[in-house]
Amino acid sequence: MKDHVYKLIELTGTSTTSSDQAIENALKRAHKTLKNLNWFQVTETRGSIEKGKVAHWQVTIKVGFTLED
Amino acid sequence: MKDHVYKLIELTGTSTTSSDQAIENALKRAHKTLKNLNWFQVTETRGSIEKGKVAHWQVTIKVGFTLED
Amino acid sequence: MKDHVYKLIELTGTSTTSSDQAIENALKRAHKTLKNLNWFQVTETRGSIEKGKVAHWQVTIKVGFTLED
Amino acid sequence: MKDHVYKLIELTGTSTTSSDQAIENALKRAHKTLKNLNWFQVTETRGSIEKGKVAHWQVTIKVGFTLED
Amino acid sequence: MKDHVYKLIELTGTSTTSSDQAIENALKRAHKTLKNLNWFQVTETRGSIEKGKVAHWQVTIKVGFTLED
Amino acid sequence: MKDHVYKLIELTGTSTTSSDQAIENALKRAHKTLKNLNWFQVTETRGSIEKGKVAHWQVTIKVGFTLED
Amino acid sequence: MKDHVYKLIELTGTSTTSSDQAIENALKRAHKTLKNLNWFQVTETRGSIEKGKVAHWQVTIKVGFTLED
Amino acid sequence: MKDHVYKLIELTGTSTTSSDQAIENALKRAHKTLKNLNWFQVTETRGSIEKGKVAHWQVTIKVGFTLED
Amino acid sequence: MKDHVYKLIELTGTSTTSSDQAIENALKRAHKTLKNLNWFQVTETRGSIEKGKVAHWQVTIKVGFTLED
Amino acid sequence: MKDHVYKLIELTGTSTTSSDQAIENALKRAHKTLKNLNWFQVTETRGSIEKGKVAHWQVTIKVGFTLED
Amino acid sequence: MKDHVYKLIELTGTSTTSSDQAIENALKRAHKTLKNLNWFQVTETRGSIEKGKVAHWQVTIKVGFTLED
Amino acid sequence: MKDHVYKLIELTGTSTTSSDQAIENALKRAHKTLKNLNWFQVTETRGSIEKGKVAHWQVTIKVGFTLED
Repeated sequence: MKDHVYKLIELTGTSTTSSDQAIENALKRAHKTLKNLNWFQVTETRGSIEKGKVAHWQVTIKVGFTLED
Repeated sequence: MKDHVYKLIELTGTSTTSSDQAIENALKRAHKTLKNLNWFQVTETRGSIEKGKVAHWQVTIKVGFTLED
Repeated sequence: MKDHVYKLIELTGTSTTSSDQAIENALKRAHKTLKNLNWFQVTETRGSIEKGKVAHWQVTIKVGFTLED
Repeated sequence: MKDHVYKLIELTGTSTTSSDQAIENALKRAHKTLKNLNWFQVTETRGSIEKGKVAHWQVTIKVGFTLED
Repeated sequence: MKDHVYKLIELTGTSTTSSDQAIENALKRAHKTLKNLNWFQVTETRGSIEKGKVAHWQVTIKVGFTLED
Repeated sequence: MKDHVYKLIELTGTSTTSSDQAIENALKRAHKTLKNLNWFQVTETRGSIEKGKVAHWQVTIKVGFTLED
Repeated sequence: MKDHVYKLIELTGTSTTSSDQAIENALKRAHKTLKNLNWFQVTETRGSIEKGKVAHWQVTIKVGFTLED
Repeated sequence: MKDHVYKLIELTGTSTTSSDQAIENALKRAHKTLKNLNWFQVTETRGSIEKGKVAHWQVTIKVGFTLED
Repeated sequence: MKDHVYKLIELTGTSTTSSDQAIENALKRAHKTLKNLNWFQVTETRGSIEKGKVAHWQVTIKVGFTLED
Repeated sequence: MKDHVYKLIELTGTSTTSSDQAIENALKRAHKTLKNLNWFQVTETRGSIEKGKVAHWQVTIKVGFTLED
Repeated sequence: MKDHVYKLIELTGTSTTSSDQAIENALKRAHKTLKNLNWFQVTETRGSIEKGKVAHWQVTIKVGFTLED
Repeated sequence: MKDHVYKLIELTGTSTTSSDQAIENALKRAHKTLKNLNWFQVTETRGSIEKGKVAHWQVTIKVGFTLED
């Protein structure tokens, strides 16, 4: 089996809907330019507040993808 | 632009529904006495268990708000 | 009141649905062999990616339960 | 069951006697103005030194209490 | 000398007396089923509060013991 | 000597000038309502950016002050 | 695809040879009783010293394995 | 409002003048190729020493900027 | 001396041979497109397991390199 | 007031009696050669186990003392 | 090239002027007895407060220097 | 049994060969002046890079040794 090398980039996805959706939004955007995304890990969950409610969920993730040779 | 000063308080919201709702519940309660909430950041996600299911989601957050002069 | 002793085990639950459901799945499995689960705390949230979407949510939790005498 | 919201405050208790007593002193002081204290968690243990002995134990704790509706 | 392998388990001991005693209680319970305990390390110190006093000290420790071949 | 109890609050000071000044601004504001501030410790240094320059330094600190009996 | 649940256990492997071999020794021992080991992650690298040389490498790892239904 | 996605990159700025200036230098360089920088957060402050004085301040920051659709 | 700015990228190198070789593999790959690599720092060591042995060492590193003006 | 410089050293004190006494023992030993000890902070609490009881409390502390000019 | 060994010591520098100057003061003092200081890294920034202003900046750093053979 | 006190010092060993050898080099150097070294623990693994290969492995460790009475 080959010795792959992976790169990790850090993204903050946002969503007005949910924390999970904020992650999906970040992945959807990354997928536009990077086709070989493998995994993600959450590094921080934040959000902005308006009138006592979450306005935007802001979830920061690291996304790993395979580097081609 | 003015040099604002913000205060951060730490709250644990709980919910029988979801981890996101536990955060909303904490914000809703804080909004009763503090009208200028700006942002939150999650510091811990826990929960109590009953019969192999989450009974209460317990999410601890820091909430930042503007201090008036 | 008795001085209880609790044991913590670490589990990674997975789900194709949501991060919350990944936790529920881990608890449901643990409940099969351990009837006295008390609480959990999240230690890591990760996931696998397929076609720019979350394929499996993978949430690692510590689960505490009472040790009988 | 109700979805309670808890607030956490951070205190440093001090004592010339022991690290445990420093915690008790912080709780005793907090209890004067807050009647519904629920739990604490230690965040730091320090102390001042005089003549090669602990002069004051200084233990920092977070104290959680129920917010009334 | 042999290359031993050790296992670490995580326990929360409780005590109405002191933080040290909470650790002793956890070790006493573990000793009932594991005879070769070697060492422990504290990972968290918490407690429940009643009437402005510590009701139960709750100390979480990792306990290491030798795995037999 | 008395066994003092201290409270820690968390503030984010901002400044267009420098990171040190952001701390001074937070202390100046806190001093308006709390006269017995003792010490601070930095927990995070951030900032907003405009045209490739720091627009606002944002330094989060914990501030400790003596609780009166 | 099934929603697997994984368990993580923590082991300290030791070796007189190298840090990598300490990990291999821990895995070899775990494999005796657990046939479905999936992955490991290093949590600490320590060692004992004799005459200015490493006597025993001691590497603590978490080992994840699939829980059967 | 749109659900923006942000990318975070990590830079180490250096300066012979001050720690703040090291950050400004990193931002100035990033601004050459990235026009939509939003915020930064400090992750490490180091420096090289010559003759008992700071020769170069070396401040590592994460810089967040908006990803265009 | 010039005030250099460095960029840090995060890579996961893998190897069937050793943890050190996993790092070398990551550096070899990065060197194909980046000629001015300066230093690295390890952020995580993991691995996959097959038949009680390490199948692939997976070491995540941050790699720093000089940004040209 | 003078701009003092302090040095921090790290010590592990041990005791068969209690965790607090392990700290006192470390301070007593340090005081033999260093007369100007100012403060300490606990960095780790461990212990050895014999027959299900703590044999030796092992508490690691950093000790700060004033450097003379 | 030789395989150097470096030692790291931990110092807290103080200054009434600025956080940067507190570091310079620590280095100046260390330079009196150690001529081969190489680098430093900040581990904590604190300060004492008087009348709502920083009285003393207290910055703790690790300082690395080459050990001679 | 006596209540020993241990001191921990922090060293960075370097090696052109391997990360393990960097640790051995640090211990060999420390052994020249300290004869009672007991244990070490790794705190950081870094390295310098030349032509896409590790030039020097740089491993920082804490070394514990018994203080004589």
